[in-house]
Amino acid sequence: MASGYCVGVDLGGTNIAAGLLDSEGNIKSSLSISTEVDKGRDQVVANIIAAAEKAISQAGVDRKDVLGIGVGSPGPMSHRQGMVINPGNLPCMKNVPLRQIMKDKTGIPTTIENDANAAAWGEFWAGAGKDVNDLVMYTLGTGVGGGVIVESRLLRGYFENGAELGHVIVNPGGRLCSCGQNGCVEAYSSAYFLARHAEELIKQGDSSSLKARMDAGELLRAEHIVEAAKAGDALARKVWDKACYYLAVAIIGMRHVTNPQRVVLAGGLIAAGDFLLAPIRRYAAEMAWKLLDDGPEICFATLGNNAGFVGAAGCAWEARRTGDW
Amino acid sequence: MASGYCVGVDLGGTNIAAGLLDSEGNIKSSLSISTEVDKGRDQVVANIIAAAEKAISQAGVDRKDVLGIGVGSPGPMSHRQGMVINPGNLPCMKNVPLRQIMKDKTGIPTTIENDANAAAWGEFWAGAGKDVNDLVMYTLGTGVGGGVIVESRLLRGYFENGAELGHVIVNPGGRLCSCGQNGCVEAYSSAYFLARHAEELIKQGDSSSLKARMDAGELLRAEHIVEAAKAGDALARKVWDKACYYLAVAIIGMRHVTNPQRVVLAGGLIAAGDFLLAPIRRYAAEMAWKLLDDGPEICFATLGNNAGFVGAAGCAWEARRTGDW
Repeated sequence: MASGYCVGVDLGGTNIAAGLLDSEGNIKSSLSISTEVDKGRDQVVANIIAAAEKAISQAGVDRKDVLGIGVGSPGPMSHRQGMVINPGNLPCMKNVPLRQIMKDKTGIPTTIENDANAAAWGEFWAGAGKDVNDLVMYTLGTGVGGGVIVESRLLRGYFENGAELGHVIVNPGGRLCSCGQNGCVEAYSSAYFLARHAEELIKQGDSSSLKARMDAGELLRAEHIVEAAKAGDALARKVWDKACYYLAVAIIGMRHVTNPQRVVLAGGLIAAGDFLLAPIRRYAAEMAWKLLDDGPEICFATLGNNAGFVGAAGCAWEARRTGDW
Repeated sequence: MASGYCVGVDLGGTNIAAGLLDSEGNIKSSLSISTEVDKGRDQVVANIIAAAEKAISQAGVDRKDVLGIGVGSPGPMSHRQGMVINPGNLPCMKNVPLRQIMKDKTGIPTTIENDANAAAWGEFWAGAGKDVNDLVMYTLGTGVGGGVIVESRLLRGYFENGAELGHVIVNPGGRLCSCGQNGCVEAYSSAYFLARHAEELIKQGDSSSLKARMDAGELLRAEHIVEAAKAGDALARKVWDKACYYLAVAIIGMRHVTNPQRVVLAGGLIAAGDFLLAPIRRYAAEMAWKLLDDGPEICFATLGNNAGFVGAAGCAWEARRTGDW
């Protein structure tokens, strides 16, 4: 175990989470403050720095033992350039050289990583993947995020836009995705889109216990679909089944591309527990080849909402190890 | 330019191709001999060694300047273990520790690589990808082979079975593939399967100029489909269009996974030229997101049948550079 600590910061559209971690991934402090995105770029940057400083002071460690800061930022962003480019949920943060700003203001070496990559690195470093070198992570939230680790390295891609696993096409010509493509994993297996899928089928005339909520003016949520599917509602079951089926198709694709040892599922949808995991595992086993026994284990993430700042701190430890600040 | 030479050997079911190359990928000698797979394991191994020795002697270089041997072997095989495991087209080569045998018999350090990976490395090192660091290759032959380079490293995967790009599912529940899965790229976009696709449609009653060949007892080949499609045959056009369409779907998937700078197409099908390339490029552009301009260039391989032994020699140079023999 290396001595010292790194700060991890998870920059979100609503909150900034931060924490101080040792080299083994133990959390020494953690906190969350408001991003205050409406107050503009300077305030958001000040808040990021404040969150990092607070994580240090709260842990009560000697400042000289703080060896690095990692920031997970929504994309598009550039790790190589240390730049937040144009995140949809942070419109004031256009082309912000955050790495250099953080370095200048704190005096601590800083690395910036895509937030989905940072979360995957968190699970790889200190969570559900800490005993493997090759991992694929799907975060099943509003959208479907992705992260890929190959031989203990983050896969970033030439355009630094790799591991956008939610936008792999699993049903060509299928449902329209938020990204403009048709048939993406995200269009079936994200919390947001599976609720929209149910609404669309009901509007087309399919009967469902969920119709009462819609008639009452409620916007359907993934939890409603899960609840109704568990209660036997046929439409909810169909939508849920498609979500599991197409995620399994995507996982089989990754089996044949990066051929990971483990696939980790994270995000709000995993609250459904075995109701999610069992059909995904079943479809992934049924549909995949039997030629070779090279299927990944499929399991849930263990870090929950901490994955972002934990992974960002882990990215700082990795930057220190490799000298890639 | 490093001094010295490496041997590349491409082990196939029918022939063994070999050559001697310098560190820049220049071919100093090349040859091809029969594999003699029917004569069994010992003869095949002897032929592999003979091909390597012949490549050295034919080039007339000093043996002490030969720094390594790379062998591309059909899978399943293990680079890490230096082992040919169980290739379908080389049934006598079951669990052969070829790396150690080659080392012992020639006295030259040897590395073994999956043949599709070796071919991709060849294009990356000395062919259509020699100016990029991140590349994806599809070999459109009898099957669809794949190779992936990420940050100038071969992507092998935890089970050493990565980059099996022909078996990514692009049409769930679709055509049965040789691997047992349904809807693989290979089931639509390989020379073999696109000919079968045409035959099946004709047997189902679709009319086509190709029916005359079938009635004459001929087995359809990809060239027949290309020829008929060019001449306006609707069925041939449909089959060819699906081959291009699903390959484009797969390429968009890779855009979102490894996010390469370039996608290189190789294999027999590329003889179709722009008749293949233009629709693939068009579909890949049409169906992909417009959010970010992160699409790879799509182009043809340049090494032709030499890619295998050239890439195998390149793998030996890389093993020498990294010390990973």
